[in-house]
Amino acid sequence: MGLDRLEDWRRTHYSTEITPNLDGQKVTVFGKKQCVVGVRGVVKKSEKAQLGVEIIPEEIKILNYAQHPLALDPTGRIPAELDVRLDARILDLRRPENRAIFKINHEILSLTREYFEKEGFLEIQTPKIIATATEGGAALFPVVYFDREAFLAQSPQLYKEQLTSVFEKVYEIAPFFRAEESRTTRHIAEFISIDVEQAFSTWEDVMKLLENLIVFVLEGVKKKCYRELKILKREIKIPSLPFKRYSYDEVLKVLEGKGFPISWGEDIPTPALRVLGELHPEEYYFIVDWPTQSKPFYIKPKDDKPEICEAFDLMYSWIELASGGTRIHDKETLIKRLKEQDLNPESFKHHLKVFDWGFPPHAGWGLGLSRFLMVLTGKENVRECVLFPRDRDRLEP
Amino acid sequence: MGLDRLEDWRRTHYSTEITPNLDGQKVTVFGKKQCVVGVRGVVKKSEKAQLGVEIIPEEIKILNYAQHPLALDPTGRIPAELDVRLDARILDLRRPENRAIFKINHEILSLTREYFEKEGFLEIQTPKIIATATEGGAALFPVVYFDREAFLAQSPQLYKEQLTSVFEKVYEIAPFFRAEESRTTRHIAEFISIDVEQAFSTWEDVMKLLENLIVFVLEGVKKKCYRELKILKREIKIPSLPFKRYSYDEVLKVLEGKGFPISWGEDIPTPALRVLGELHPEEYYFIVDWPTQSKPFYIKPKDDKPEICEAFDLMYSWIELASGGTRIHDKETLIKRLKEQDLNPESFKHHLKVFDWGFPPHAGWGLGLSRFLMVLTGKENVRECVLFPRDRDRLEP
Repeated sequence: MGLDRLEDWRRTHYSTEITPNLDGQKVTVFGKKQCVVGVRGVVKKSEKAQLGVEIIPEEIKILNYAQHPLALDPTGRIPAELDVRLDARILDLRRPENRAIFKINHEILSLTREYFEKEGFLEIQTPKIIATATEGGAALFPVVYFDREAFLAQSPQLYKEQLTSVFEKVYEIAPFFRAEESRTTRHIAEFISIDVEQAFSTWEDVMKLLENLIVFVLEGVKKKCYRELKILKREIKIPSLPFKRYSYDEVLKVLEGKGFPISWGEDIPTPALRVLGELHPEEYYFIVDWPTQSKPFYIKPKDDKPEICEAFDLMYSWIELASGGTRIHDKETLIKRLKEQDLNPESFKHHLKVFDWGFPPHAGWGLGLSRFLMVLTGKENVRECVLFPRDRDRLEP
Repeated sequence: MGLDRLEDWRRTHYSTEITPNLDGQKVTVFGKKQCVVGVRGVVKKSEKAQLGVEIIPEEIKILNYAQHPLALDPTGRIPAELDVRLDARILDLRRPENRAIFKINHEILSLTREYFEKEGFLEIQTPKIIATATEGGAALFPVVYFDREAFLAQSPQLYKEQLTSVFEKVYEIAPFFRAEESRTTRHIAEFISIDVEQAFSTWEDVMKLLENLIVFVLEGVKKKCYRELKILKREIKIPSLPFKRYSYDEVLKVLEGKGFPISWGEDIPTPALRVLGELHPEEYYFIVDWPTQSKPFYIKPKDDKPEICEAFDLMYSWIELASGGTRIHDKETLIKRLKEQDLNPESFKHHLKVFDWGFPPHAGWGLGLSRFLMVLTGKENVRECVLFPRDRDRLEP
């Protein structure tokens, strides 16, 4: 749209002045930061200018005004608490640092899809409104669905598994929902999950897929986002492949030596993860061979040692980025596992039906987009890596 | 994963036989359709085979069994009602026709993102759980959000508008939710919307963007999906640019001549759309110059004739594919429009705040993915174009 069109628009709203031949003059746009300004002029190379170019203006127009004082300083020079910043998120996002974060977010997604495309995955869309809890009833948001109760999906887990019996290799990048009561720097109520599921595969196949993806994205971001990384004062080091695999038992032994004893079968609590992070700073690594009881019902127990399962978590320092594994594709085993976890097989009848129609062996994982973005941008709170975060206390803006 | 690994897996579950040197033999895998079979062998060119190649097997294994009778015939030779098919959706999806539909779905998305990337748009993620209704309180799904009431977003409308003041050109492809009480072939409760918003632009700019996207995608699908189009017996004709623009008044006059009088200011009802479809078969066209009262509060009224607004719908035959327009970027006008539509400006305080921080003029649109897929695949019901559709009556599988 040319400035002429904008001029028509503004005429009825403001008395804008046209200021021709500004060359050589210093123009202060009413001294008001964040006004929207239209400039017509000639772009020239400039060594003084930060971006290497400047516009020699011939015409300047105010297209919209900002009211002062602003809710916060959008240059970031006057620091503000995270909550204040999130309340005025649009102003906050205008800081160069935040613009850099979400440019990197964009490139992670773009590179991830490029990688999946190359690997022959089909993009799928699974329902976000579901009738029953997929991984037990905990932490679900209830939805009033016409005259029924429904829930927001926590993950595409069972749907993506089923679709491997149709399309073999599938992926979805979509929002999912978890009613997290706890207030941590890593958990939010609405998050983007990068999900993959692949037929005729084991956990080893999909761990390779995942570590290759991580390196592919890191290399791509390093190349495409050097400006943004400079703004964020970040340097990306490309890890070597394969990432190290540590067994759950090994991790427990190390943690015990550091004064953090964990009962076998339990998940690793946050303080212990922090210790792990100190032992593996700036390292991507897998924790494998988890106790079957600590993982969801659909993870395949090992044939020769069923108390251990074919599950893995991908870690960076102390942060869990992804988790996945080989899935159970045998109906009887799945029913047994459902019962062991106090889940009612009747609630999973639609999923169990698919086992009667021919279900290939399969494996997959889910990777948290914003956690990966935290790692790349060096942010300590996942809320910095989401445009409009949602949590226990925040539903707006 | 090699067959050896699969062999290990299956050993505990089934007594699988290894059948070496099958060359020249005819193998019937127990006569059971939909069993999952692993075949090791040599791929050879073959004129008899439908795909042009066949595998000369050296080893065949049953990896998982199917139970007969199946819920429906996955070859599609025995036709079934849509509801029966949706109940056994995974089997239904295995029909070549359905696999073709979702391959085209994949390519539409891939091409759309390629186009946005080329045009310099940034991908965004807006919240799906929101505190207040964006377009009035109708047709929203309530969510129990911890101890508060919240809603599922109908569109990213206000968020994407706000983000033009940060990133200028943004897009989102994501699920949105509408509690549609009516049962039609075009409406579902959960749908994927392709949303665009662009600063310093008018409806004319974004109409051009939209028609160029449509042609870009059609050309791409035609090239990449010739096999799938053949299965669906579809031929894609590339429409010429620009698409025709018909004003709302023109459309009303034509419909009146056909015996469908519509009061000025009302939306065009389905029977009248069907008549329009007969007049414009296989044509992409815009309906422009809508009455301000018939469109949402954020659409900009014309400066010289405020009862008409800068809104458009993109139609194909009788189906509305997209709608958009120039947005209001002046706070007073927006408050006036909110009140005219009986909405409480207080409920929109977070959105109105952004107008005090400098808001560029902007325009955009939303395009329904599955409706576009209906058009490309020639399907009469949008449920055919969604993997697991959700509506008034259906919440499973």
